[in-house]
Amino acid sequence: MEKMPVGIGLLGCGNVGSALVRLLDKGDIKKMLEIKAIAVNDLTKKRPDFVHLDLLSDDPQSVITRDDVQIVVELIGGIEPAKSLILKALNAGKSVISGNKELLANHGMELANAANKAGVDLLYEASVAGAIPLVRLLRESLAGEEIVRVLGIVNGTTNYILTQMTEFGIDFKNALGQAQNLGYAERDPEADIEGMDAASKASILASIAFGADVVFDDVFREGITGLETYDISYATKMGYVVKLLAIIEMVEGPRSSTESGGTRKLSVRVHPALVSADHPLASVRGPFNAIFIEGEAAGDLMLYGKGAGGAPTASAVLGDILDAAHNISFGASSRNLKRETVDFAPVNDITTRYYLALDVIDEPGVLAEVAKVFGMNKVSISSMEQVETNEGARLVFFTHVALEKNLQATKRDLGNLSVVKKVGSIIRILDGGQE
Amino acid sequence: MEKMPVGIGLLGCGNVGSALVRLLDKGDIKKMLEIKAIAVNDLTKKRPDFVHLDLLSDDPQSVITRDDVQIVVELIGGIEPAKSLILKALNAGKSVISGNKELLANHGMELANAANKAGVDLLYEASVAGAIPLVRLLRESLAGEEIVRVLGIVNGTTNYILTQMTEFGIDFKNALGQAQNLGYAERDPEADIEGMDAASKASILASIAFGADVVFDDVFREGITGLETYDISYATKMGYVVKLLAIIEMVEGPRSSTESGGTRKLSVRVHPALVSADHPLASVRGPFNAIFIEGEAAGDLMLYGKGAGGAPTASAVLGDILDAAHNISFGASSRNLKRETVDFAPVNDITTRYYLALDVIDEPGVLAEVAKVFGMNKVSISSMEQVETNEGARLVFFTHVALEKNLQATKRDLGNLSVVKKVGSIIRILDGGQE
Repeated sequence: MEKMPVGIGLLGCGNVGSALVRLLDKGDIKKMLEIKAIAVNDLTKKRPDFVHLDLLSDDPQSVITRDDVQIVVELIGGIEPAKSLILKALNAGKSVISGNKELLANHGMELANAANKAGVDLLYEASVAGAIPLVRLLRESLAGEEIVRVLGIVNGTTNYILTQMTEFGIDFKNALGQAQNLGYAERDPEADIEGMDAASKASILASIAFGADVVFDDVFREGITGLETYDISYATKMGYVVKLLAIIEMVEGPRSSTESGGTRKLSVRVHPALVSADHPLASVRGPFNAIFIEGEAAGDLMLYGKGAGGAPTASAVLGDILDAAHNISFGASSRNLKRETVDFAPVNDITTRYYLALDVIDEPGVLAEVAKVFGMNKVSISSMEQVETNEGARLVFFTHVALEKNLQATKRDLGNLSVVKKVGSIIRILDGGQE
Repeated sequence: MEKMPVGIGLLGCGNVGSALVRLLDKGDIKKMLEIKAIAVNDLTKKRPDFVHLDLLSDDPQSVITRDDVQIVVELIGGIEPAKSLILKALNAGKSVISGNKELLANHGMELANAANKAGVDLLYEASVAGAIPLVRLLRESLAGEEIVRVLGIVNGTTNYILTQMTEFGIDFKNALGQAQNLGYAERDPEADIEGMDAASKASILASIAFGADVVFDDVFREGITGLETYDISYATKMGYVVKLLAIIEMVEGPRSSTESGGTRKLSVRVHPALVSADHPLASVRGPFNAIFIEGEAAGDLMLYGKGAGGAPTASAVLGDILDAAHNISFGASSRNLKRETVDFAPVNDITTRYYLALDVIDEPGVLAEVAKVFGMNKVSISSMEQVETNEGARLVFFTHVALEKNLQATKRDLGNLSVVKKVGSIIRILDGGQE
């Protein structure tokens, strides 16, 4: 490390960018890394003191093409111009660090191919779960490991909302309002609460953990907007916590289906799930994130930490920069990730246990009618509880393991019963885990 | 990766070694890595099928010196002959992977210096917490991070015992018996229950996280043998869980001490601690391990996983082997760790809150006498509860933040009171955390 500092070109200087500038301004790091230029949209905007104004430029192309820039850090976000700028940097032989989940979730393979071709690094630790070093874990520590399943709490906003609903019994709307007041949720919260942010991260996780080419549109997605306070409290009563999970696993196609007869396919999905209260993921509270990895030899591993915020994200970016700088000084590059095309398991093919809530009219014989629908659709009931409500009765079911397709048919048929006033939440139950 | 496989020489083929042989026998890995020879003590011992007998040798020197061995994996354990063999391998320019905590905790600096001098890798992910990739995390992902504190549950045996005591209200002896029956504890459990295993791991963790030269003897250590069932249940009642923690942090020397006036020193210690029930470490149950890292920019991070067992440990060793092989193919080496001599904070200098249990005779005026001793020693009481026992009364105190030295003086003076029948457990309370 007695060499010249490695030159950094920064694209974007917002929350994460300025936190990074601050981290790079410290003793030991300063000797190894030096920011040569920073591309910003608005040269006149007020910046923190530690951002040297003479480094700023409103021409990102010039930042990339500087001879003294060896590592380009992209913190602009969005698809364009980020994508073109990154491709240009890679093609010019620069290593690239990005925290841009939207871009990586949609064009990750194209970018990875460009990096492989140029023999440089493309690192994106900050794109999935902020400060949590899971990309390096999956790429390096678990490089020889057969990954069985990856479960992630990868969206801090929804985890905060669900934690508040669970611990204080408040409803979704109030919990969302709190999250917005605390700055955990945007004024337009759709990307978080509808699971889109988590789905982007799930596609990146799937690419790394299973070496598969997975894009945003391959991810099955359900958000948390439909969850009622009573869903959460029944879950608690039965020893579960409701979490919005990203789930990535190889599943067997159903044997009865001729089209997919027993072959293994990748299931990548984001939806609320009931997690057993003694599962490590259940203890992940508030805006924190966690990734739970089930490996063939390593067993269960979990990484927990801050999924967002300027300093934590900048810390992840810095880890990547140091990695790229190390490789540059040795003329090496990080291990490339193969990305293969895979078959995806339709969500209808998964099998799991379910929670299902049903508002019905309060009359004798209703349960028999309802139970018949479950039976006809080959969904077996594990437990049932009936509760009086103001307007009638509510039936809460836990099923045995069933095929999603059959559960959806049950849902449809229940909705057609005249005694059923409303089919409420259907929540999948996470099986297995550490026991 | 189209090159010749990298040659591996294995020293030791027990539980972890044979699990490793199995992992190396798989498709993709097999093309990259090849075991050339395995040194064992007993050539006649029965081995699993997948261990090829023609690879076995009872001469470890010959395994190390083979020209076709580029990476030596040491899984013998103990100080000698492991140390001499590793030094010989490093000096011969071979990369070395070791999971030998005893050796690394006592001679880590000498080995690291030899590796640095030879420009090869010395990797030991498996030495601290089995499958949990914390060494790589600290060395690479957090290379630019200022670490504030590291907390570890690094001994599965004691964590299993404490979990059983907490969840089933059984006493230490019974919980230990269960752990022995399940194979979590040795027949001679001293190294685990007296905290020696955890202290070895704490010294390695401290070396990595703080770049300090820390050996086993620098670690302050208390085991869990003195904990009573009632300690655990009071803790539960007050919202805490008892964990055996490795704690590594920079602390300020007390200002009043002329000798160490306000300078920062490293505190490395292993002792039971009361952990708030909503702290992520509290949810680490049974034989699992976890490392909780508080970073300046990254915030709180936790890694959770299996701390022992053949397959998980072999998985960590395999991660290291792939790392070393990657570096060999590029002529690079892992980032070396500087290890500097540091001043250690005597345990008497730490400040924390305490739990303290006291058996006293059941008479008026006893509490006043006891409280006076606390006051004289500048230890302020936060809460007190008196419980009738069969033989008298028990007083359970929670203190405000106090200096360890003052707490120890309190303990001594309480022991001299005629009304005190027994000074029971004194348990430090973990402060701070994620809130």
